[in-house]
Amino acid sequence: MEPNLPIPDNYFSSYEDLEIHRLMLEDEPRTSTYRKAILNNKEYFKDKVVMDVGCGTGILSIFCAQAGAKKVYAVEASNLANLAKEIIKENKYENIIEVIHSKVEDVLLPSNIKVDAIVSEWMGFYLLHEGMLDSVVFARDKFLKEDGEMFPQNAVIYVAPCSVPNLYEKWEEFHGVTMSTFSKHLRSDKSHKPEIMQIRSVDLLGEEVALNWINLRDCTVEELDSYCVQHVVGANKNGRYQGICIWFECIFPELSSEERVILNTGPIAEPTHWKQTVILLPDEQRVEEKEPIAFKLDMNRDGKNSRRYNLQLTLLDPEEIEHPVPCCCDMTKCILINAVMKQQVKHAMDQRQIVNDSVLEEEPIDDE
Amino acid sequence: MEPNLPIPDNYFSSYEDLEIHRLMLEDEPRTSTYRKAILNNKEYFKDKVVMDVGCGTGILSIFCAQAGAKKVYAVEASNLANLAKEIIKENKYENIIEVIHSKVEDVLLPSNIKVDAIVSEWMGFYLLHEGMLDSVVFARDKFLKEDGEMFPQNAVIYVAPCSVPNLYEKWEEFHGVTMSTFSKHLRSDKSHKPEIMQIRSVDLLGEEVALNWINLRDCTVEELDSYCVQHVVGANKNGRYQGICIWFECIFPELSSEERVILNTGPIAEPTHWKQTVILLPDEQRVEEKEPIAFKLDMNRDGKNSRRYNLQLTLLDPEEIEHPVPCCCDMTKCILINAVMKQQVKHAMDQRQIVNDSVLEEEPIDDE
Repeated sequence: MEPNLPIPDNYFSSYEDLEIHRLMLEDEPRTSTYRKAILNNKEYFKDKVVMDVGCGTGILSIFCAQAGAKKVYAVEASNLANLAKEIIKENKYENIIEVIHSKVEDVLLPSNIKVDAIVSEWMGFYLLHEGMLDSVVFARDKFLKEDGEMFPQNAVIYVAPCSVPNLYEKWEEFHGVTMSTFSKHLRSDKSHKPEIMQIRSVDLLGEEVALNWINLRDCTVEELDSYCVQHVVGANKNGRYQGICIWFECIFPELSSEERVILNTGPIAEPTHWKQTVILLPDEQRVEEKEPIAFKLDMNRDGKNSRRYNLQLTLLDPEEIEHPVPCCCDMTKCILINAVMKQQVKHAMDQRQIVNDSVLEEEPIDDE
Repeated sequence: MEPNLPIPDNYFSSYEDLEIHRLMLEDEPRTSTYRKAILNNKEYFKDKVVMDVGCGTGILSIFCAQAGAKKVYAVEASNLANLAKEIIKENKYENIIEVIHSKVEDVLLPSNIKVDAIVSEWMGFYLLHEGMLDSVVFARDKFLKEDGEMFPQNAVIYVAPCSVPNLYEKWEEFHGVTMSTFSKHLRSDKSHKPEIMQIRSVDLLGEEVALNWINLRDCTVEELDSYCVQHVVGANKNGRYQGICIWFECIFPELSSEERVILNTGPIAEPTHWKQTVILLPDEQRVEEKEPIAFKLDMNRDGKNSRRYNLQLTLLDPEEIEHPVPCCCDMTKCILINAVMKQQVKHAMDQRQIVNDSVLEEEPIDDE
């Protein structure tokens, strides 16, 4: 299944459409989280040299300058570079921020200088759509100091089963008309390509599993080619299993800041313009609480267009695959394993209690 | 200025995308208004023969059958005709509703039968985008009885000056960054093509004016080629004049129903999937309450693609054009005209009072 999401022919001219940038800037969690990740770390940024890969309007570069960076290389391949220059001038940072109108792959820094940190907002739908991370990895290998920092530092894709009542539930009795046929065709139609939509957290049917954990400080482009996760999860309630919900988190470095800053695009977080990516099932399955839901998700870079990924969902028989330990499903083996583990924990606790009790008995002696 | 809105190459296959139909069906004002216009007129529809032009999923045909029609010809050019058949069968109306998988231009009805009513949901953005009304007019001329009814019966396009604070107002101080340059470019960018967006009624800067009044019972295709309105309106408050907001209303026949049913897609009504079409100005103008705003709007069918219209907004000098009488603007001539008119009304009222008084004086005489 190849996601049929828009990637314009001319990738770099698409970013010249200001409307896209307006939507991204107005994405409150996105802009605020980057701002926090940078401005909460003023002690770190003071006098640092930074590169902003794909700077767009230049707002992240300005945050870095505001945080005290002494030099920011703001690299932008599209004509938006000219707008970034204007905005930077408007904010009087033209002496600190240098806009480089170029693909980062073609950039040469004076005297082969290395930068202390790379900031970039490179994430696409389901994290990897648009493949901009490749350029960030390239920039890291060429321009980042050995111990340099990446903003963000880590990225994780999560996957969980879900229902999508907003899509399907109204059709049985719609304005006095029965439209289950419409619903059936809609389901079949939508199972051919992933849907970008906002899932409510109450519509998640089980715990999420991580598809990957990308460490931006050392991942290679090849490592981004292919991901696979096979998973079983016990349903967290009775419901209609209608799809697999995919989202991502980006984690920023914990430096001078006291709290870890995370950009979470999942159903539980404030909605972002990325929403979630949902692979919809052609046929729904009614599941009971604790019933095991087993699936395999493959995410492979497209052979022809490296900015695309093919997503493949395979429904598995929970009887035939290995369950995590512990597993919250209601299959006999998992109930047994859980019971044994519980007993072992209890035993261990009892043992510790005995040890603690002896310690307590000995204490008065110490006090004397 | 040619609106750069999506009209797919293959117009009839685009409607096979169920997602479009989902959005249209889920448009609550749209679906409810058609349902009300039809089901409130059961006395009218009883035993009537109806044609549904561009029936899509067939929901309007089903409303007609529910309202008592004895026969509905549901014409649909796209493959959606097959889905309509299934939905109609699911609702057990296959004996009343006959789906005809064809362009309406190619339809032949048995023994050249004429229909009592035509129902159709043919409206596009700013009413005429997609040009489906041409097919409805064709169907009317070929299939509707002399005294037949059109659902809807009339359509009107309204135009009013507006501001769009959601687009422009946040950029002066955006997350601690000055982005007026971004705002300036956004404005210039957006003035090249109309924007489909929801305007809040508080953001209208003056009374709307009707661009046209289309009577579906007698309009010709040629009459739909070109519309023009020249207008002056006094601003209803101090504000930023940033664009011209265009919307439409469809009015359904008043038959057995007690109330006139109207589908209003304006800023004051419940939002629909049509939203409003806004022509944005490259430069905003600050206006004071009662300051005259003068403009001319031309809407002309595109020479090459008859499903498109070119919208042209011309800002006019309020000094140089004729104002409506009365006009609420603060130009001397309008204030004078209003004062004269007020005096005339007062004079007329006084005269009537004198007459009334004499009648009252005479009454006792009558009573004797």
